[in-house]
Amino acid sequence: MCGIIGISSDKDISKELYYGLYSLQHRGQESCGIAVLNEDNNSINYHRGMGLVSDVLRKEELDNLNGNIGIGHVRYSTAGGSHVSNCQPLAGVCRRRKLSIAHNGNLINHNYLRQALEEEGFMFQTSIDSEVILYILSRYYKGNIIDSVKITMDYIKGAYSLVILSEEGLVAVRDPYGFRPLVLGKKGNEYIVSSESSSIDILGGEVIRDIEPGEIVLINNGEVKSYNYKDNYKEKQKTCIFEHVYFARNDAIIDGVNAYEFRVRSGQILAKEDDIDADIVIPVPDSGIPGALGYNKESNIPLKEGLVKNRYVGRTFIKPTQSEREIGVKLKLNPLTSVVKGKSIVLIDDSIVRGTTSKILIDSLRKAGAKEVHLRITSPPVKYSCYFGIDTPRRSQLIASKNSVEDIRKEIGADSLKFLSTDALMKAANCKNIFCMACFDGKYPIEPMVEED
Amino acid sequence: MCGIIGISSDKDISKELYYGLYSLQHRGQESCGIAVLNEDNNSINYHRGMGLVSDVLRKEELDNLNGNIGIGHVRYSTAGGSHVSNCQPLAGVCRRRKLSIAHNGNLINHNYLRQALEEEGFMFQTSIDSEVILYILSRYYKGNIIDSVKITMDYIKGAYSLVILSEEGLVAVRDPYGFRPLVLGKKGNEYIVSSESSSIDILGGEVIRDIEPGEIVLINNGEVKSYNYKDNYKEKQKTCIFEHVYFARNDAIIDGVNAYEFRVRSGQILAKEDDIDADIVIPVPDSGIPGALGYNKESNIPLKEGLVKNRYVGRTFIKPTQSEREIGVKLKLNPLTSVVKGKSIVLIDDSIVRGTTSKILIDSLRKAGAKEVHLRITSPPVKYSCYFGIDTPRRSQLIASKNSVEDIRKEIGADSLKFLSTDALMKAANCKNIFCMACFDGKYPIEPMVEED
Amino acid sequence: MCGIIGISSDKDISKELYYGLYSLQHRGQESCGIAVLNEDNNSINYHRGMGLVSDVLRKEELDNLNGNIGIGHVRYSTAGGSHVSNCQPLAGVCRRRKLSIAHNGNLINHNYLRQALEEEGFMFQTSIDSEVILYILSRYYKGNIIDSVKITMDYIKGAYSLVILSEEGLVAVRDPYGFRPLVLGKKGNEYIVSSESSSIDILGGEVIRDIEPGEIVLINNGEVKSYNYKDNYKEKQKTCIFEHVYFARNDAIIDGVNAYEFRVRSGQILAKEDDIDADIVIPVPDSGIPGALGYNKESNIPLKEGLVKNRYVGRTFIKPTQSEREIGVKLKLNPLTSVVKGKSIVLIDDSIVRGTTSKILIDSLRKAGAKEVHLRITSPPVKYSCYFGIDTPRRSQLIASKNSVEDIRKEIGADSLKFLSTDALMKAANCKNIFCMACFDGKYPIEPMVEED
Amino acid sequence: MCGIIGISSDKDISKELYYGLYSLQHRGQESCGIAVLNEDNNSINYHRGMGLVSDVLRKEELDNLNGNIGIGHVRYSTAGGSHVSNCQPLAGVCRRRKLSIAHNGNLINHNYLRQALEEEGFMFQTSIDSEVILYILSRYYKGNIIDSVKITMDYIKGAYSLVILSEEGLVAVRDPYGFRPLVLGKKGNEYIVSSESSSIDILGGEVIRDIEPGEIVLINNGEVKSYNYKDNYKEKQKTCIFEHVYFARNDAIIDGVNAYEFRVRSGQILAKEDDIDADIVIPVPDSGIPGALGYNKESNIPLKEGLVKNRYVGRTFIKPTQSEREIGVKLKLNPLTSVVKGKSIVLIDDSIVRGTTSKILIDSLRKAGAKEVHLRITSPPVKYSCYFGIDTPRRSQLIASKNSVEDIRKEIGADSLKFLSTDALMKAANCKNIFCMACFDGKYPIEPMVEED
Repeated sequence: MCGIIGISSDKDISKELYYGLYSLQHRGQESCGIAVLNEDNNSINYHRGMGLVSDVLRKEELDNLNGNIGIGHVRYSTAGGSHVSNCQPLAGVCRRRKLSIAHNGNLINHNYLRQALEEEGFMFQTSIDSEVILYILSRYYKGNIIDSVKITMDYIKGAYSLVILSEEGLVAVRDPYGFRPLVLGKKGNEYIVSSESSSIDILGGEVIRDIEPGEIVLINNGEVKSYNYKDNYKEKQKTCIFEHVYFARNDAIIDGVNAYEFRVRSGQILAKEDDIDADIVIPVPDSGIPGALGYNKESNIPLKEGLVKNRYVGRTFIKPTQSEREIGVKLKLNPLTSVVKGKSIVLIDDSIVRGTTSKILIDSLRKAGAKEVHLRITSPPVKYSCYFGIDTPRRSQLIASKNSVEDIRKEIGADSLKFLSTDALMKAANCKNIFCMACFDGKYPIEPMVEED
Repeated sequence: MCGIIGISSDKDISKELYYGLYSLQHRGQESCGIAVLNEDNNSINYHRGMGLVSDVLRKEELDNLNGNIGIGHVRYSTAGGSHVSNCQPLAGVCRRRKLSIAHNGNLINHNYLRQALEEEGFMFQTSIDSEVILYILSRYYKGNIIDSVKITMDYIKGAYSLVILSEEGLVAVRDPYGFRPLVLGKKGNEYIVSSESSSIDILGGEVIRDIEPGEIVLINNGEVKSYNYKDNYKEKQKTCIFEHVYFARNDAIIDGVNAYEFRVRSGQILAKEDDIDADIVIPVPDSGIPGALGYNKESNIPLKEGLVKNRYVGRTFIKPTQSEREIGVKLKLNPLTSVVKGKSIVLIDDSIVRGTTSKILIDSLRKAGAKEVHLRITSPPVKYSCYFGIDTPRRSQLIASKNSVEDIRKEIGADSLKFLSTDALMKAANCKNIFCMACFDGKYPIEPMVEED
Repeated sequence: MCGIIGISSDKDISKELYYGLYSLQHRGQESCGIAVLNEDNNSINYHRGMGLVSDVLRKEELDNLNGNIGIGHVRYSTAGGSHVSNCQPLAGVCRRRKLSIAHNGNLINHNYLRQALEEEGFMFQTSIDSEVILYILSRYYKGNIIDSVKITMDYIKGAYSLVILSEEGLVAVRDPYGFRPLVLGKKGNEYIVSSESSSIDILGGEVIRDIEPGEIVLINNGEVKSYNYKDNYKEKQKTCIFEHVYFARNDAIIDGVNAYEFRVRSGQILAKEDDIDADIVIPVPDSGIPGALGYNKESNIPLKEGLVKNRYVGRTFIKPTQSEREIGVKLKLNPLTSVVKGKSIVLIDDSIVRGTTSKILIDSLRKAGAKEVHLRITSPPVKYSCYFGIDTPRRSQLIASKNSVEDIRKEIGADSLKFLSTDALMKAANCKNIFCMACFDGKYPIEPMVEED
Repeated sequence: MCGIIGISSDKDISKELYYGLYSLQHRGQESCGIAVLNEDNNSINYHRGMGLVSDVLRKEELDNLNGNIGIGHVRYSTAGGSHVSNCQPLAGVCRRRKLSIAHNGNLINHNYLRQALEEEGFMFQTSIDSEVILYILSRYYKGNIIDSVKITMDYIKGAYSLVILSEEGLVAVRDPYGFRPLVLGKKGNEYIVSSESSSIDILGGEVIRDIEPGEIVLINNGEVKSYNYKDNYKEKQKTCIFEHVYFARNDAIIDGVNAYEFRVRSGQILAKEDDIDADIVIPVPDSGIPGALGYNKESNIPLKEGLVKNRYVGRTFIKPTQSEREIGVKLKLNPLTSVVKGKSIVLIDDSIVRGTTSKILIDSLRKAGAKEVHLRITSPPVKYSCYFGIDTPRRSQLIASKNSVEDIRKEIGADSLKFLSTDALMKAANCKNIFCMACFDGKYPIEPMVEED
């Protein structure tokens, strides 16, 4: 997962990009970068690096990134491919024109397109699919960026929200399914495009609307022009539900659905369907808190903080060895003995992926004296891998892909375990039928070209 | 404020010191360090630096810090004196013996003692009071560390919890009033002394007891010896109540009082004394959450997350300019419009010091559409500066030092404002009469030798 | 100017590349890098950065650069374009094949080729001509690297010595004029290609021969195959004379000419043509020493060290301001008052480019008491810019481009000034008619496509 | 060995200290530092670190080191004790007065004094003898720095040149024997004290005179006051001859003797006493060059550069393993085959300490084809360890301590070997009877308190 932002203004915007990326930091902590178009000398300057926004982008760097139009990117820590060459925004020169892009999402025909470009002699410097997008843009660029974007969209399949920095202006693109969010905002004469509405809010702007699936927006000199990918073309919208389940900030509003309200409702519905008689409700902080509030509201079982979170686990943290694993868990989440001792607990988390963290947490709560631990998950079991930008592991590593709920319960050691049903999830989302739920139901909007192991 | 830890074991403890400091990181983020006694070559090795534990103490450094006995320190960011020379632990050689100390607290006769030592020709390399302690220890050290500690305690006045690394073993000291916490724990053959019980818990040990006010503990070869500062001497215990109000982790138990329970109770009592008819209760995250849970429990006004906290504000964060100040606030705490819009809100925070944050937050909530904001503080007004280790500003900067509650309310723009009374605070602390509440009531256990401006 | 090296072996060669680059450090101090092909997983790993070999390539980096075949590059500090993106070796993937190149030289049709590639949609990430070479190689690569190199040579015009790291082996290429040196050596089963014979010597190998102009060499599995660019094609060799005048190490042997002997002979011939009656000969260290030795030998005027050189002027050296300029000069070269006072001096330098250093040095010698300063240059006046890899400034900045020798003498303040004639230079080079002397005589082997200002 | 500098001016001198240390860099490359007294706020600021002047002292640091009076230090890389805590200048506060010192030399009663101070309770933070000097200064400081310096000189025995930064002004001290050089200079209203006259020269000042043995100089407000250590006390001067043999720059004038002239004369006298019939004279660069010039002048055997020195061997250079040792040697000094092949060589070096470098060099020259190698050393055999600041190894490691000249010749593999006699050395030094030659003749001016192994 990643976060992207683009700003077009009549004043210098490097610091706004910085604060904007800051507000998107939860979408990716591995690397980040900013690219800015300096219209005076018509050059694109950029700075990228491994690490958090506050570590990579120092005052010295920002001072060298002046411009009225620019884009930014934060990248999530994925298993492979953690290398400085994969940092975004990507930038280059084609037909004397500077071009830079930042991409959130995942192409499913990446390998095919890469091979085709290589056949034409194109060289790749990174291992990310975003470079394919850049080169197709460049390949078909004949002086009009919108034309070039449309042709590119003919080629690329999958999830992509893009911000493109070109000499013709700032371009924002959302794929025809609208997998990944992208929001348009305004602040005086300035336009802001961001993965989440929160950035616009924090920068002091007003949210105008979501960029629509298949929409191309060109912003220049305080003017916004909207294009459709194809006139007679309209895919059914399939925005990723996992943005609401886990990924987005509580203050994000995506395609009209409020993430926080969604999460509280998920907890409420879960409680409504539940009949457990427990002493306390405990959230797994921080992502389980809204769900726990909803569960508490509906069930009237008292809400307590039962796990203390360490706020300072940094990138360079020395990982505990196997024998120190218990220390590692408690460093992050330490049970509050006084709260959990002798208690029957409803533990609320937003999702279960591999199941390892749940298992360790439940064990840790028992050691602190919990009498019973009833795990409640405010989303359905994750049974299928995501090919559209969420870094779920291969199916074989998803605990729910081959195990029944009862098997999972046994494996993680809970006294009982319940998930939200997909129907209930739909209800939590105001019954809006605009979501991709493939990770839960396997109904992929586009069939992935990947063999499952 | 600072955090200290000491470990005496029969195996290498550098990584345990590291994880221990990690769990104390909330007590100080400015600088940190570890000192270890290598008994093979009888040398003390140390590493210190500005920044977080995970930034300063890298694998390379830990690999060079082998030893079975060692101490660690995290230091709070104070206004002045942020310089690498002030990092702890301090270390030196006296009478061929290595000595290192880490100190939490504040001496009130620091200037006097420094002058007296300088009269004898001692040179100071730092500007911190801890160096005075080190030199007095050294000055009177004649081959027995306990004797030397006792003499030192004759000289130094104020708040001090100390861990001392000596060739005779690990020494832990708590001043006669017990201003700052210090807890003793055990893990197999290993003894751990830490500012907070949480560290012991997280390292997998068992808490034995608090070090008593005026107690000196010597740990060596798996043996613990306890000494009293003076046989016939017993000060009335005066542990800092602010540790419970704000400073310590939720999972800390200090002198028998559980920080989390204390905070929840404070919120409950506040609600009991309150009669406001509001729509929702919102905590200022993270420190206001337990109080809000208590308030919600007692009042039955629904609890909501109304402020979204950014988890990534780092040390090198580029500070917003005055004109960007609003961005700066929202970057840290952004109101959740959907939650607060049109609502009458009870906003719960743990304390008010200068009042500036409260003012900005209330303003920010109003802009997000809040109808009414009723601020409730789970502690009394901070009217007096602390001279015993909490970095409260000078009295003139404390909003409650010269203003009535009503004046404060006007200044920060709340619709109503209530504090917990000192009596209620005492009740929240189980009526234990062991606390210094000087910041609230001005009754200093030792009269400070400082002129107030 | 740059230096390149390539090694093909049956054992790990990252450290040999390191030492090899070390021995080429005089050819470029701005940036450096190493790329290595790991045949186990068929990947190219590289590390590049701004700075000296010993600063950029640390032990940690070398440990991650295992492979039996690799290339390295050092880059000279040029006025513009000092940016990390311009570091070499360049690397990429084309048609599933990894490719990396390191380039010494300068293409004269760089802009034209770049434009042509951009027309085809290629994107450029750097501003260096070497990227053009990489992309043409990639553009025409159909599975045989030699074919691809030959086609590339059809396109690129100018000076280029290349080492190419491919899955088919190590390739070394020298342009048809042989502007830049490239030497082949052997050490057991290992082959080494380097800009200078010294590297091979220092690594403990034997020099086999120079790569010939227009030759392509493929080294794989201990086997060397040689190809000609074109069968019936043979340009007249035009190796850069400035390599001998200034650039190469004293221990380099290039195309059969020994750099040190050439330099001594230049000084001898200069003395033979001279009739000055001076007290002492003083070299400008270090490059003027061999010439001064030759001059002293022929003239019998005693040789003295009259200028003390500071060996430690590093990259991050804080440049003196205008008012401190004199300090700046003396920091680098301080006159030895006891040697120069009252003396009539023959000052020997290898060349004059802008003339500013000579002027300052002569002034500095006079202030130290020199009676007369007769400047003797062991090469002709530099009248023309180089377009083939030497970073001479624009013609307008060359002091000899528009001034007579007498005018130059006046400008720099020497009592007399003599240069070596081009005929004499030819004699010093053993009358070998294989040199490009365009910087002296304006006879460019290929007409540059650049407008002179 | 170390280098020190002190400047007292009426303008900011941090950059002059920087350039001054730069010119002293040859005296120490391990660490360096600057301390500056800011008279506005009466504080001493300093910056110290491991590495070269250009690496440790960046623009940011210098910008924070404003002041009109300051001192600087460069430290030599010694076998043990290479740790950041040993960097100088040392600084501290005593009796409310700031004090900082930089020290060149070595105390012989360091251990005794350290023990005595520890008995009084003083703590040591470094392992260097300079800290003893600082503490004695502080111990006896009663408001008059000159008095305190005199008392300190009663205690400390050995070699010390000191610059002291105090609130009373800049103090320069040279021990009663004058072991280490210290020179006073003037530049307008500014006074400069430096280890070598070159710094003063380079900074654009005029050398006034050497500080005399036993002299204390106080500089303040453009006024220089001179004090004698004791009125009726005058030791016989014993300046270290090794400064002239090897250590000082060619442009240094120490106690009236010119280092370069001394070195040339040493070579001349060596040649006069010699009768070898060789083809060429080759210096070991750079320190052997003046001696070789002298030898060449006297013997008329032609001088050649036969060894090419790499100018870029940096601090972080990855050391070759044992099997790569030959590469390591040639990286530093590579024989010029064309010069040495078939030749009978007189190889000139300034001294032999362990003999290992000579052995490897001679071997390397033979491998390059040298017919005969006759080693000539422009100083006598080093038979005794130095206890006064030169980092000679223990006696047992000095090749000349137990071996005859013939045995040394065999060991290092020379065809013949000659040293300068101590009488000749005296002659080279203009028969000035002011030198300590203990490393050659064992006549220690003060008997060292060290047991020889």
